[in-house]
Amino acid sequence: MTITDVEGFLASGVASGIKNNKELDLALVTTEDQQPVPAAAVFTSNKMTAAPVLVSRKHLEVTGGTASTVVLNSGNANAATGEQGLLDAERMCQLTAQGLGCESSEVLVCSTGWIGYPLPMEEVTYGIKSAIDSLKDDQGTTAAKAIMTTDTVPKNTLVKAKGFSVGGISKGAAMLQPNMATMLSVLTTDAVINPQEATRLLQKAVSVSFNCLTVDGAESTNDTVILLANGKSGVEDPTLLGEALIEACKDLAVQMADDAEGSTKTVFLHVTGAKDDTEAELAARSTANSQLIKCSWYGEDPYWGRIAAQIGASGIQFDPETISVSYGGQIVYTQGKAQEVDSEALGKHMSQRRLELHVDLGQGRGESDVVTTDLTHAYIDENMRTS
Amino acid sequence: MTITDVEGFLASGVASGIKNNKELDLALVTTEDQQPVPAAAVFTSNKMTAAPVLVSRKHLEVTGGTASTVVLNSGNANAATGEQGLLDAERMCQLTAQGLGCESSEVLVCSTGWIGYPLPMEEVTYGIKSAIDSLKDDQGTTAAKAIMTTDTVPKNTLVKAKGFSVGGISKGAAMLQPNMATMLSVLTTDAVINPQEATRLLQKAVSVSFNCLTVDGAESTNDTVILLANGKSGVEDPTLLGEALIEACKDLAVQMADDAEGSTKTVFLHVTGAKDDTEAELAARSTANSQLIKCSWYGEDPYWGRIAAQIGASGIQFDPETISVSYGGQIVYTQGKAQEVDSEALGKHMSQRRLELHVDLGQGRGESDVVTTDLTHAYIDENMRTS
Repeated sequence: MTITDVEGFLASGVASGIKNNKELDLALVTTEDQQPVPAAAVFTSNKMTAAPVLVSRKHLEVTGGTASTVVLNSGNANAATGEQGLLDAERMCQLTAQGLGCESSEVLVCSTGWIGYPLPMEEVTYGIKSAIDSLKDDQGTTAAKAIMTTDTVPKNTLVKAKGFSVGGISKGAAMLQPNMATMLSVLTTDAVINPQEATRLLQKAVSVSFNCLTVDGAESTNDTVILLANGKSGVEDPTLLGEALIEACKDLAVQMADDAEGSTKTVFLHVTGAKDDTEAELAARSTANSQLIKCSWYGEDPYWGRIAAQIGASGIQFDPETISVSYGGQIVYTQGKAQEVDSEALGKHMSQRRLELHVDLGQGRGESDVVTTDLTHAYIDENMRTS
Repeated sequence: MTITDVEGFLASGVASGIKNNKELDLALVTTEDQQPVPAAAVFTSNKMTAAPVLVSRKHLEVTGGTASTVVLNSGNANAATGEQGLLDAERMCQLTAQGLGCESSEVLVCSTGWIGYPLPMEEVTYGIKSAIDSLKDDQGTTAAKAIMTTDTVPKNTLVKAKGFSVGGISKGAAMLQPNMATMLSVLTTDAVINPQEATRLLQKAVSVSFNCLTVDGAESTNDTVILLANGKSGVEDPTLLGEALIEACKDLAVQMADDAEGSTKTVFLHVTGAKDDTEAELAARSTANSQLIKCSWYGEDPYWGRIAAQIGASGIQFDPETISVSYGGQIVYTQGKAQEVDSEALGKHMSQRRLELHVDLGQGRGESDVVTTDLTHAYIDENMRTS
């Protein structure tokens, strides 16, 4: 169940030759009549911003928040490509608009892959034509496949709400681009919403889903989340739409963590009892991005020492006597002492793909949730060489 | 050349049984007559503070900055051990003082090893007696060996200045304690200095040496650097002493990087052209602690994309068009473009143990130097299980 299971959207995915001649690497998502509809986007805050991000941002400004189409490619991020990169990203929109008979400014563009290399425009041109010819109302999953890089499975979601739906595809795991793991996502909905409200709801949904996912603390040059809202359902309920967007984004974020580069564990980290939410988030991210703690998860070791020491060094209000650490509901450390545990049950929990880690700081009411992964030999293998 | 090559200091290292019955694990460093001399210390700022740090800090307060002796053990960090840990750390000082005939408050204590387990006091008691019996004026290297944990070689240094010397031993690589890699160092000098000046000079030396070393961004519960200054040389020159301390600490820091857990590369990262020194340091630490960039070094890959993207995401003033990245003096990226390189020379540089990485941000005059290491399969092997 995916973006084309929302009424009024078409998609396609083709092999253009950017990657090689066989792999899908170019995708389109569009409204069925190619008419612009309210659109919203959240982009990377990395100052090393890729050309497609700059072009998509500009197009949304020009149109005041509408778009009909998103064109996406994998295999080349069109990042750190200077002036030529901007021309190429614009050209991708123009070629798409010409083929579909719409305005270039109504097309948004996303790229993911190697950075520092110019886009192979011959292949891109061929790919866009081919993708236009392939547009169908059941090709959302093909589009999801065409944006994959180091992903091993396509990520799709569909949330059915009262009278409308939200569909989504995504790729990557919030990691830095090389090895090609930029996070991209396109969401579709048939709910009625104006661009300003759509932006507000999308920002909120991203902040509690994709932004709670940290694999290695890195933020890509290309990270982009786009929402197209065609209004076909006639249902206007921003509250319900906001909830559905959160559900869709959370579902995609967990799929991304489960498929993160070389990972063997998805860790749901819940921090409570911090002085405030900001300190809770600092404790959570500091824990989630610690190489040492990530190694423990890989080793299925419920050792609390690294966690307490990492948070103790994070600069937040902290007392070793009030911190408690639990895995899978079993307290392993509290009141300054390691606890006796049911080692069979704990071992069973640690051996699962998904770990539940709860850290209570005993200092206040601040809370934060983060989803993260372990650090493995395979992660190093994937990232030790870029060529 | 080590701490006991400075006139008037004795040291020893013995196997007490804390680790097992064979490995050295308890060390003493003392003035030859066990009389207190000006002393200074820099401790971890981790709020998960180990008992020996709390006790040593208290002793220096009580004496107003003098000490005769440092007692150190490896194999157990006496951290997260609650009230009993404090009693045990105090007891280590008492046993040492009784054996040497000095005041307990004139003894400082350091521990490194597993956290969360009470010290085996029977072994410690035996070890302290044995170490006192073994004190000699040529046993500095034995003491350096007795504080090793995951270190593969002992770290010693001796800096000869005009009329006086600075000796040092250290262990660890500024990593978090588990796997037992707390950073400890004891420095000796026969220069004349008062405790206040000694503290100022030591803080300065630590800030430009050990604090510029980051292996995995983690700070231990036990990190401690201690200086004993017996004044035997009769030479009082704080400027020269400051310089000698910096040289000694830098030498030890590089030895620690070269021996960091599982590492194959020591990376000397020099950031220039930042808006100010604070932003330069942020860029440097952000680069040094990036898992992805560390993997590149392991792969001997001079890829600039990750570095530019990491710094672009670090929040500092940044322009992709003004950043330059060089390895071993060869520019690989500048003015927004990857550069043609002499790939043979570059390949040769990347294959060495020590890499020189220079990043110029083109934004101002801020500078920062950091020494760091790569991320390897062996690092994961050493850290994936604590037992």
